[in-house]
Amino acid sequence: MFETAELNRKIPKQEYDAAEPTLRTALLAAQERLKGAKFSAIIVIGGVDGAGKGETVNLLHEWMDARQVDTHAFGPLSDEERERPPFWRFWRVLPAKGRIGIFFGSWYTEPIVRRVFRESTKSELDRALQRINGFEKMLADDGTLIIKWWFHLSKQAQQKRLKSLERDPATRWRVTKTDWKHFKLYQKFRRVSERTLQATSTGEAPWLVIEGSDHRYRSLTAGKDLLDRLTSRLEAGPATPPEKPAPIKHDPYTILDTLNLSRKLSDKKYEQELERQQGRLNQLWRTAKAEGISTVAVFEGWDAAGKGGAIRRITPALDARDYRVISVAAPTDEEKAHHYLWRFWRHLSRAGRVTIFDRSWYGRVLVERVEGFAREDEWRRAYTEINEFEEQLAEHGIALIKYWLHIDAAEQLKRFTEREKISFKQYKITHEDYRNREKMHDYELAANEMIERSNTEHAPWVLVESNDKRHARIKILKALCDRLESAL
Amino acid sequence: MFETAELNRKIPKQEYDAAEPTLRTALLAAQERLKGAKFSAIIVIGGVDGAGKGETVNLLHEWMDARQVDTHAFGPLSDEERERPPFWRFWRVLPAKGRIGIFFGSWYTEPIVRRVFRESTKSELDRALQRINGFEKMLADDGTLIIKWWFHLSKQAQQKRLKSLERDPATRWRVTKTDWKHFKLYQKFRRVSERTLQATSTGEAPWLVIEGSDHRYRSLTAGKDLLDRLTSRLEAGPATPPEKPAPIKHDPYTILDTLNLSRKLSDKKYEQELERQQGRLNQLWRTAKAEGISTVAVFEGWDAAGKGGAIRRITPALDARDYRVISVAAPTDEEKAHHYLWRFWRHLSRAGRVTIFDRSWYGRVLVERVEGFAREDEWRRAYTEINEFEEQLAEHGIALIKYWLHIDAAEQLKRFTEREKISFKQYKITHEDYRNREKMHDYELAANEMIERSNTEHAPWVLVESNDKRHARIKILKALCDRLESAL
Repeated sequence: MFETAELNRKIPKQEYDAAEPTLRTALLAAQERLKGAKFSAIIVIGGVDGAGKGETVNLLHEWMDARQVDTHAFGPLSDEERERPPFWRFWRVLPAKGRIGIFFGSWYTEPIVRRVFRESTKSELDRALQRINGFEKMLADDGTLIIKWWFHLSKQAQQKRLKSLERDPATRWRVTKTDWKHFKLYQKFRRVSERTLQATSTGEAPWLVIEGSDHRYRSLTAGKDLLDRLTSRLEAGPATPPEKPAPIKHDPYTILDTLNLSRKLSDKKYEQELERQQGRLNQLWRTAKAEGISTVAVFEGWDAAGKGGAIRRITPALDARDYRVISVAAPTDEEKAHHYLWRFWRHLSRAGRVTIFDRSWYGRVLVERVEGFAREDEWRRAYTEINEFEEQLAEHGIALIKYWLHIDAAEQLKRFTEREKISFKQYKITHEDYRNREKMHDYELAANEMIERSNTEHAPWVLVESNDKRHARIKILKALCDRLESAL
Repeated sequence: MFETAELNRKIPKQEYDAAEPTLRTALLAAQERLKGAKFSAIIVIGGVDGAGKGETVNLLHEWMDARQVDTHAFGPLSDEERERPPFWRFWRVLPAKGRIGIFFGSWYTEPIVRRVFRESTKSELDRALQRINGFEKMLADDGTLIIKWWFHLSKQAQQKRLKSLERDPATRWRVTKTDWKHFKLYQKFRRVSERTLQATSTGEAPWLVIEGSDHRYRSLTAGKDLLDRLTSRLEAGPATPPEKPAPIKHDPYTILDTLNLSRKLSDKKYEQELERQQGRLNQLWRTAKAEGISTVAVFEGWDAAGKGGAIRRITPALDARDYRVISVAAPTDEEKAHHYLWRFWRHLSRAGRVTIFDRSWYGRVLVERVEGFAREDEWRRAYTEINEFEEQLAEHGIALIKYWLHIDAAEQLKRFTEREKISFKQYKITHEDYRNREKMHDYELAANEMIERSNTEHAPWVLVESNDKRHARIKILKALCDRLESAL
């Protein structure tokens, strides 16, 4: 596929000088419109060393309003990055809506380099590219404009370019040993890149291969492509008009109905087991900590199902220094300006820690679905996005466990009434809670589908009969211990 | 000072059980009010190992609404932390307004430990404590409620406690080798702690020493103190009522008037020097990068003084991978929920990078002062806060340089008019710009005072005569090179 980028295309100075001011004006105007738009733009820069990647980025900085552009380069992993799944370093710098992020080096670098140096197999490369496609699709679905440029040079042109850079004392520093090392691997690099570009040139995120030998040609080509893509995205407006929430089909029987809510534990048995399981958890967690294995526990379930109480039976077995309870409330405006998973990525902890989510990313397919905050296409694709997210956590070695705490309507009402009587629990009950009860059936069906779609091997759901708090808490503790045991 | 915390105070179970529910209710109520308040609370936990620090934090988690509380512990520095000034790790996790941050281990740990192990001198300890006082005062001035608890045990009590923890298999893990190592240094640790507490028990951030041997006593004492401090802070309301901006005294002659704005450079000389200085900068920056020395360049000055143009003459000498231009616009809501310096701390880059601020923290004493966005007490204390901030950057080895770009009113008007004619610069001119011209004299006086107060050895101001852009750009490049040269 690179043959068409070896035609030695050139643009004469006169033509360039005539076109440049118009292009700059149009780019600035498009950027102004982007400010007010509800999407961000990502420019991924890849390609052959010496093909003008750095110069193009510098030029974009010169042409555009730098206040809206962030360029990110990715060197060796920091230890904070190494302790999280590989995509964390990209998530943490994704641009907010209205902004442009230039990714100089990106999620493509590692898969390509590893394959060139034979540190990965062909199928590992393909798997990595598949993940990339999922990642880019997810961003694109969220409205992100993804522009990917591959700057190409033929082998001869690259050699010539590197040598000419080396001759000039002002540019000699740009040519590193790595560049020459890569040059020797030109053919391998070319083959792997070709495979990569073919596999990842998708409808929502196509690659543009830019011939890099003539700086005027490559600058205008890149600039015009950016302008075209920005303009057509601005004119297209939002992909799908917001819809009314789809009526939820009422299936009379869900997986939650299979739970035996009469399960109970005596007070005595509870006290014994509580001590036993907390002791066990403490042992396991300390081993996990020493081995740098993190734990993520997700709590979902009905209001008043006892999530908080269950969490408070876990934390005494841990050290306050090493766990965090994230209670998911309304997003901040920085969070709103990103993909909905961004706020969870940013909470991922360093190695060996325990993170407990009191409500989680599943809000997307529960409350956001039922209340119509997310459109149908949004919550439907969320299952895939969430599975992909959790798979990344699991692959990184994080022990992930998800709980659904189930109580029936009568038990819930009883608890609401009780809470109102206990002074320090009153704050937990609002009108909202009673209102939500009316939609209990919708929620139950949404939960049923959620469990069906996201009950994976690496991230299983534990359904907890919670009418009896003692039974629930012990089941939760036991399941957490079992999960840690199998992760160690 | 610890004698009063060695009285073996105890609270009987009955008394505790009677007091606890009331305390919990009141704490939750206070927390509810905090949510809507415009300040955050910080709880600093320090003290003797085994004195119940962890248990108290766990208890607070149990008593309070965990959704509003973040507990942070601080182990060894990560490489991302090591590459920034020491306080960065604390700044990055300061709680937002309405939230509570528990600092389990804090800015006190390192100074105390270093002194106990004789890695620092007495005067170095005092210097560190002075810095802490400045940091806490700054937060307190911004409205933050600072609560500091020191959990104390006598030597005998500590030994007893560590041994009893070790006897119980369920708590044995809590006692580490470090704990016993510290125990052997009990007297040294006690002396250094005493000195620390005395020097840092200030009006805005006093220490409360809590006797740690009886868990009921220490829990109730801590809980009650938290409640008292929260309640009285909530009732006091904002420290100072917002004032009208103080009229600025018009001094007819400022330091800016001493600048010779007729300084010029010919086109030819400019081109020569530009190449020379860019080459020089490139060399210096590469050395700095290799040595891990970061650069921070701050640009302030009149609208249309040429800040952007000057920055664009610097960046071509750098690699887009290694610099960032931060253009300071309106803060996000997460930024607004923190001290005004928080948004700049979060932009500090890793080692060896260049960060260019197009406008900066000086906005506090310029636009915020002149336009009345900051109260007089706020912008007045900002000089101290900013100097302290910059000193920390400098001590960390960051090469810091600050430019004030000066043009006269006639030149500014000329440039505004010109900009309106050039299509791709039109976006830069708004009504606001013309309006600001009316306050030019106020700004000049604010700038004059700013330069006077913040022109320090480690962070000097470079005043740049900018009526002639060529002269300005070369002077800026040269100054940057000189700064780097002296930093290397």
